[in-house]
Amino acid sequence: MKVAEIQSFGIDEVVLADRPEPKPQFGQVVIKVKAASLNYRDLMMVKGVYNPKLRRPLIPLSDGVGEVVEVGTGVTRVTVGDRVAGIFMQKWIDGPIDESKARPALGGDIDGMAAEFVCLDQEGIVHVPDFLTDEEAATLPCAAVTAWDALIDQGQLKAGDSILIQGTGGVSIFALQIARMTGASVIATSSHDEKLERVKSMGASDGINYKTHPDWDSKVLEITNKAGVDHIVEVGGAGTLARSFKAVRKGGHISLIGVLAGATAEVNPMPILMKNIRVQGIFVGSRKMFEDMNRAIALNNLKPVIDRVFEFKEIKEALKYMESGAHFGKICIRM
Amino acid sequence: MKVAEIQSFGIDEVVLADRPEPKPQFGQVVIKVKAASLNYRDLMMVKGVYNPKLRRPLIPLSDGVGEVVEVGTGVTRVTVGDRVAGIFMQKWIDGPIDESKARPALGGDIDGMAAEFVCLDQEGIVHVPDFLTDEEAATLPCAAVTAWDALIDQGQLKAGDSILIQGTGGVSIFALQIARMTGASVIATSSHDEKLERVKSMGASDGINYKTHPDWDSKVLEITNKAGVDHIVEVGGAGTLARSFKAVRKGGHISLIGVLAGATAEVNPMPILMKNIRVQGIFVGSRKMFEDMNRAIALNNLKPVIDRVFEFKEIKEALKYMESGAHFGKICIRM
Amino acid sequence: MKVAEIQSFGIDEVVLADRPEPKPQFGQVVIKVKAASLNYRDLMMVKGVYNPKLRRPLIPLSDGVGEVVEVGTGVTRVTVGDRVAGIFMQKWIDGPIDESKARPALGGDIDGMAAEFVCLDQEGIVHVPDFLTDEEAATLPCAAVTAWDALIDQGQLKAGDSILIQGTGGVSIFALQIARMTGASVIATSSHDEKLERVKSMGASDGINYKTHPDWDSKVLEITNKAGVDHIVEVGGAGTLARSFKAVRKGGHISLIGVLAGATAEVNPMPILMKNIRVQGIFVGSRKMFEDMNRAIALNNLKPVIDRVFEFKEIKEALKYMESGAHFGKICIRM
Amino acid sequence: MKVAEIQSFGIDEVVLADRPEPKPQFGQVVIKVKAASLNYRDLMMVKGVYNPKLRRPLIPLSDGVGEVVEVGTGVTRVTVGDRVAGIFMQKWIDGPIDESKARPALGGDIDGMAAEFVCLDQEGIVHVPDFLTDEEAATLPCAAVTAWDALIDQGQLKAGDSILIQGTGGVSIFALQIARMTGASVIATSSHDEKLERVKSMGASDGINYKTHPDWDSKVLEITNKAGVDHIVEVGGAGTLARSFKAVRKGGHISLIGVLAGATAEVNPMPILMKNIRVQGIFVGSRKMFEDMNRAIALNNLKPVIDRVFEFKEIKEALKYMESGAHFGKICIRM
Repeated sequence: MKVAEIQSFGIDEVVLADRPEPKPQFGQVVIKVKAASLNYRDLMMVKGVYNPKLRRPLIPLSDGVGEVVEVGTGVTRVTVGDRVAGIFMQKWIDGPIDESKARPALGGDIDGMAAEFVCLDQEGIVHVPDFLTDEEAATLPCAAVTAWDALIDQGQLKAGDSILIQGTGGVSIFALQIARMTGASVIATSSHDEKLERVKSMGASDGINYKTHPDWDSKVLEITNKAGVDHIVEVGGAGTLARSFKAVRKGGHISLIGVLAGATAEVNPMPILMKNIRVQGIFVGSRKMFEDMNRAIALNNLKPVIDRVFEFKEIKEALKYMESGAHFGKICIRM
Repeated sequence: MKVAEIQSFGIDEVVLADRPEPKPQFGQVVIKVKAASLNYRDLMMVKGVYNPKLRRPLIPLSDGVGEVVEVGTGVTRVTVGDRVAGIFMQKWIDGPIDESKARPALGGDIDGMAAEFVCLDQEGIVHVPDFLTDEEAATLPCAAVTAWDALIDQGQLKAGDSILIQGTGGVSIFALQIARMTGASVIATSSHDEKLERVKSMGASDGINYKTHPDWDSKVLEITNKAGVDHIVEVGGAGTLARSFKAVRKGGHISLIGVLAGATAEVNPMPILMKNIRVQGIFVGSRKMFEDMNRAIALNNLKPVIDRVFEFKEIKEALKYMESGAHFGKICIRM
Repeated sequence: MKVAEIQSFGIDEVVLADRPEPKPQFGQVVIKVKAASLNYRDLMMVKGVYNPKLRRPLIPLSDGVGEVVEVGTGVTRVTVGDRVAGIFMQKWIDGPIDESKARPALGGDIDGMAAEFVCLDQEGIVHVPDFLTDEEAATLPCAAVTAWDALIDQGQLKAGDSILIQGTGGVSIFALQIARMTGASVIATSSHDEKLERVKSMGASDGINYKTHPDWDSKVLEITNKAGVDHIVEVGGAGTLARSFKAVRKGGHISLIGVLAGATAEVNPMPILMKNIRVQGIFVGSRKMFEDMNRAIALNNLKPVIDRVFEFKEIKEALKYMESGAHFGKICIRM
Repeated sequence: MKVAEIQSFGIDEVVLADRPEPKPQFGQVVIKVKAASLNYRDLMMVKGVYNPKLRRPLIPLSDGVGEVVEVGTGVTRVTVGDRVAGIFMQKWIDGPIDESKARPALGGDIDGMAAEFVCLDQEGIVHVPDFLTDEEAATLPCAAVTAWDALIDQGQLKAGDSILIQGTGGVSIFALQIARMTGASVIATSSHDEKLERVKSMGASDGINYKTHPDWDSKVLEITNKAGVDHIVEVGGAGTLARSFKAVRKGGHISLIGVLAGATAEVNPMPILMKNIRVQGIFVGSRKMFEDMNRAIALNNLKPVIDRVFEFKEIKEALKYMESGAHFGKICIRM
């Protein structure tokens, strides 16, 4: 079968290779992958930025959806023909994270979804909502679960709360949709006015162009009558965190997700103390969160926003498109 | 000024009396009442069922909205001209309930809102959303805060969860609206098909006529694929609780609110244990909950459902109408 | 190998039978059982009271500790020679309960620990604290985890809180020890003054003889300056629940555990509402709770209280001794 | 009456001045101060580091205990003769922090406790445990409430959990005592072996000399079998935070309290994300927390650790002693 492989680091080094088709062991299932989606982590993985000691060759991509085509003995959670997605961390089923649940993660510690067939433990998959296309369902495992964990499980968001999203990448757009679904309000930042118009058409109350207003935190305070927002879905990392400290309300929450601004920047933590802020690191979520979210998505007809779909053989182009930062929502791959 | 008074028990004993207009002391405000609303507790208070030792004469009604017309020294939270509602328990500002916060309650321990003017401590009032009429705003203090406390503060409801409401009284209809606002699904019971149609038009997914289906719990299990609902807003008391134990999912929540079925019925508590159910008594809520709710109401344009508005002088008719149980949503009084 | 079997209902019908020794399948381990302990549920199971449709023959007892003597392929959590206990519900690993986690339970849905060897999935066992004897460790799976779930996971008990325990059975004594370990105070009820002296020597602040004071709730209010206790570990069921409603503080918690008073009694739920009480059904707990508890037990040198140890062949005598209600703490069986 | 005043910045600039004795207004009480205690914030306030725009002259010190000697009209919470402490933030009674509760704070926004008499609102005081001396009780308002908020309200600490404290200042020693009272284990760091011996005698399981072991985080991982501790009470600020990120377990909590290491250092926030860490800024706590803590202190006989008591006229010496960092526990002032 065809798989994509990271052998050397660099987008142009991604190789389409052949591997034997997997056979399911006790408790395992084989999935014929139909669609996958890209996350910023995949890009960093391919470029060797995420983990310079990455085991190679590695099949990249954490997110994929497909059809169960074969099941091993002892499999009771699914049957052949079911449509499922892999969960990001194969051992994080339920409850709070711990060291043993955090590994292994698809497309990082172990091979990912950029393959015609993948073999996973029956515990490491979930059924996806029927009303979604394969590509739409493939956007969920990393970005959507991350947004859900940040806002719902950790953030305990409720109707009437306010959140801030940064940019229009996958996590941010899912955060917008989940917040609106929950009756919360959304302020968005972007460097493009047309993207701000688009998030407003999706329910954001306000958009701030951070190119025009580099001091976007002041705009947030202006919009919120100096109070600040309740919750910030921080995807900029140290590069934007200092402003987020100013834009969040006293006692507010910041979900620290992003790695966009690079791993080397530093920030003064004093405002965390002075404003009683909670900064919660979010690293995707559990299968339970994924299942809870799927129920909410189905009930509320939440349609993931797909920017563009590439063919499997165009995986390098897809990664380069992600690198350009031009996207709004998710980038998918049709297998 | 004109006030309504409970002197002897019984709806027909409610008297319109004259009292001197109040003057604000330190930290107090005088409110010219514009509208009030009725709750089942008011009816029981008037009939002497709620508290046979009720201090009398007592001005009834917990719920009312009006305009601040005079403020005492030390008042900083409001100014003359503000539109405010009294909070149900005048001392429950924030945090969990305790004995000292639970008293005094309007229209029970102390005089209520059925008066041309009322005098309250500045801490015992909240601003109400601008887009609501006086009558709509007057529906909030008891029924809406109760539903909010049950589902949001205690229930931690999230998108995708399912709730069951019983009947179409004030708390039930607010629970429906708050659940929908939060992205949750709603099953409703009623003895009238036309009321079920109406709750469905408001977003309920299913309606069960408990006259046609006295074993409505079986219908709930059928609708939920045998799982049961996540949360029941139980307003029937002991009369319906046994069925609610069957209709809620393992590990589910029941908000115990209702007193409709009478104070003498009993129930076997065993299913609470065997199904790991949480039964949480809900007795209205804090000012903080009221304020949080108002923010959510304003953001999501939640319009309270008013069945009928009576004139102040028709207060007996209003109480009798409530007693008939024919209403859908709230019964109001225009002062 | 020797096993105990429920073939017909009744203590005297318990039979010592022979079965072939089990062999571990994929992911399973075989445990040579060293000690077991009795719970009231076991007694009801044997008598046919718990589940009249119990699948038979059934090996009873949920609680047992032993040594891993053989492991199947794929086993990574334990090795031969480890000392482990089975977890009550074999599928409740972590997170909140749900229908699929609630089954199967040892000694109920599936064969229990009253056997020379048992074969369990590697996920369904935990290591037990080194400093405990086999008998002591065998007391933990049901009673101790139940008390931990009630007070810690669900009760969020903290130093300075007050709890009430009823009687001196396994759950009550563990609740006393866990509460004291957490810096909380304990009031105990019993029908024997010498048992009350003993719980006081273990750290209870007050003891109430409910024979001498059938209105023990009044004594609780007296002791707590009319406030009531924060948390009641209710093991009496409907028989004592009405008094517990009076003895708990406004906004307090009642963990509903007990089945002692029989399954048919009923109670008026009104006080739940009027006092904003939370009644939480507790049915043992997850493996995660068991592991958290073991850590606390080891750190704080909590020694389970064993009343008496019987030999395996004396299992009927052990059950009869439990039925007599004379015990203080746990009844064990040495295999 | 005699008061201490910050007129110009600098320890040597603290002045003992005369002011008229206060008279209570509606709802206020006058307290004859018996003892006060110092916190690092007081030192920074005096030196002009905390708030360069500090309103002056200002009476410093947030912590003080005294006897109510006069009450205004409307006072119901205390009577003349009661022994009380002021609460740090005079408006934070209950519930989560917000902007309006965060101000005013004693010895910062408003005059503090370094005076013979202070006049406070009746809502801004708490009764202190009888068994404590005035000096001991005076140590509680800032440091002890901060430790309680960090570990109990925000940290949800439970028996068996592990915490790390840094140094032997007031907050750290209270954190040690509160953790031990809750059945949790404590690892301590210090630059003095004799202080480490002392914390071990108070129940810490391990002490790490960070002079001998500048990479104290590695020692923590060694002690915890590479897992890291559950909770760090971080008082070093940016200066130690990077190591705390390494020493805390995956999914662990860091209470960010400290300002010792200066306000200008910066830290790379990436580990927060990668380890799903929660960093919670803690700025003292509410009156409710203070009252809960007092109950726990009284029940468990927690005796605050006082390093040294100065006379009122020695307030400069007391501040200099704090500046030296030589203390273990709290520094007090007898009025």
